[in-house]
Amino acid sequence: MHKNAMIEAKKKLDNLIKPIGSLGELESIAIKFAGITGKVENQINKKAIVIFSSDNGVCEEGVASAPQSVTAMQTINFLRGITGIGVLARVNNCDLKVIDIGIKEEINYPGLIIKKIRKGTSNIAKGEAMTLEEANEAINIGIEIAHGLKKQGYDIVGTGEMGIGNTTSSSSALIALTNCDIDEAVGRGAGLKDDQLTLKKQVIKKIIEVNSPIKEDPMDVLHKVGGFDIAGMVGLYLGAKKYDLPIVIDGYISAVAALIAYRIDPETKNYMFPSHISKEQGYNIAMNELGLNPMLNLSMRLGEGSGCPLAINIIENSLKVINEMGTFEEGNVDIKDYKDLWREEI
Amino acid sequence: MHKNAMIEAKKKLDNLIKPIGSLGELESIAIKFAGITGKVENQINKKAIVIFSSDNGVCEEGVASAPQSVTAMQTINFLRGITGIGVLARVNNCDLKVIDIGIKEEINYPGLIIKKIRKGTSNIAKGEAMTLEEANEAINIGIEIAHGLKKQGYDIVGTGEMGIGNTTSSSSALIALTNCDIDEAVGRGAGLKDDQLTLKKQVIKKIIEVNSPIKEDPMDVLHKVGGFDIAGMVGLYLGAKKYDLPIVIDGYISAVAALIAYRIDPETKNYMFPSHISKEQGYNIAMNELGLNPMLNLSMRLGEGSGCPLAINIIENSLKVINEMGTFEEGNVDIKDYKDLWREEI
Repeated sequence: MHKNAMIEAKKKLDNLIKPIGSLGELESIAIKFAGITGKVENQINKKAIVIFSSDNGVCEEGVASAPQSVTAMQTINFLRGITGIGVLARVNNCDLKVIDIGIKEEINYPGLIIKKIRKGTSNIAKGEAMTLEEANEAINIGIEIAHGLKKQGYDIVGTGEMGIGNTTSSSSALIALTNCDIDEAVGRGAGLKDDQLTLKKQVIKKIIEVNSPIKEDPMDVLHKVGGFDIAGMVGLYLGAKKYDLPIVIDGYISAVAALIAYRIDPETKNYMFPSHISKEQGYNIAMNELGLNPMLNLSMRLGEGSGCPLAINIIENSLKVINEMGTFEEGNVDIKDYKDLWREEI
Repeated sequence: MHKNAMIEAKKKLDNLIKPIGSLGELESIAIKFAGITGKVENQINKKAIVIFSSDNGVCEEGVASAPQSVTAMQTINFLRGITGIGVLARVNNCDLKVIDIGIKEEINYPGLIIKKIRKGTSNIAKGEAMTLEEANEAINIGIEIAHGLKKQGYDIVGTGEMGIGNTTSSSSALIALTNCDIDEAVGRGAGLKDDQLTLKKQVIKKIIEVNSPIKEDPMDVLHKVGGFDIAGMVGLYLGAKKYDLPIVIDGYISAVAALIAYRIDPETKNYMFPSHISKEQGYNIAMNELGLNPMLNLSMRLGEGSGCPLAINIIENSLKVINEMGTFEEGNVDIKDYKDLWREEI
């Protein structure tokens, strides 16, 4: 983090023709961005959304409303540009990078990046999701992707995932990391009905009992009850910090991965921009633990990275504000009229 | 409202490859837009932000932190493109329409639209802000602007204002319309300090006592304790309904104007899109009365219409989703896998 650039950015913002702090998060975002790049004025030219696709062995417990084959099918549909993220990425000029990090089926499609660790995790209701080595392998894949994006000149990256059953692994990890109440942490995913939701909670209770993940050890939690998609995202967050790349959190699964990365390295938080208040139960627990404030209030619960292009647009607006607004002097307003006012510190 | 287009839009959305309703407000927005235009698929090509600038006689009571001259100066700065809305409108391809509907000073600047009713309202701590005739005149200006925008081919309009002292008129109107608590309705505006805030509340108490605005009569409230900027915005909302023009609510003052328009004609609500959860105290009261759910959570409190370009961008994304996402069939996913799920009705 470049503290000095943040101080300079705040100084610049406070001299722009508006009550100090009145553009709220648009100002905080510009300051945070300056802290990552070391420059007060920034531009976003190249944008990527990285989607980690992977399957989850726990699906055999009946925790998901859709069949596992949907993971592979939607992965192809991302590349065809017809899903929610496909459309939102395209219209916002974000490049999609789709990674097979553990899909059960062998698939191939032009543009698919194959980094398959294994054909899905093991059933976490019966034992650990993956070995610690596999978790590290997945993390390294994420770090290397961040490295590659940086080398290719990307200015920002958004996180996405696809994996039938991955709200179960996410909720298990969230409970393990926070000891939060199961009712607060477990949601309907794509659309479980009441009886299915009850079953999912029972399965998650069993997952915690069987694996005994250690709250203070995020890698223990990740490899025991996580997924390859989550581990890949954890790596992407760690890589974002390593290579000074601003990174956007999408919804629930992405937020749980962000929390794991934060527990591994608290400084990763300085590189994270949360996008939207997900409708999926448990999201706010992860966000409160991270102490971050999402920009969008759209009741979305799709995943795929779908909140990221919208948030990147807000970030771009924030950068335009600090780059292009006039100063008090340029606006012929006495700085004292606006400067000596009550304000919250940002 | 074109109910049939809304039903068709919902039907189309429910057949796109995602859990039903999982794109939340992006789906609701597309449905609402269809209801306004009568078409399932829509595009936004021309966008305008209308700013009503006006002064408030109540400033002589010491309710504002900045001098009245800032109203005129910032109005010019809007046209110079150096304010918050100046930048945000430009980078989001929104045309700015700046209206002098009651600025105290005589100003002129290329592009300024002069519709001055009077050089500021009367001091509402001593009597009514304007006559009922003047309020109707201001409303007609707003309606005619909506008409003009429609004729010029604009697809959407955002509301903005500038007027030192206008959070005092807004809070007075909000209290008159809802009987809400003064502490919940009165905020710091541009940045009042504690003692100034206490004074502002005392003045507002007096404003209500002196004028006795009638809760059930929005025109009585508007002309007694409103402002020319608020009245112009009320007209713009009424005109948006009259001419089938989607309209975006900005922050606190814009939300109070929206509430007055809604009380005059409840159907105006079907044309309104709230942009952001303003940080100014009282905003949520107006929004709850309207029963609308803002898209953005950015702690902004600048006004000027600054939330509108950001919200219009979200709306454009919503329209791309309904226009461009693929169907279950196109995505080779069995519709039953995704369709027979729990969902909230939107």
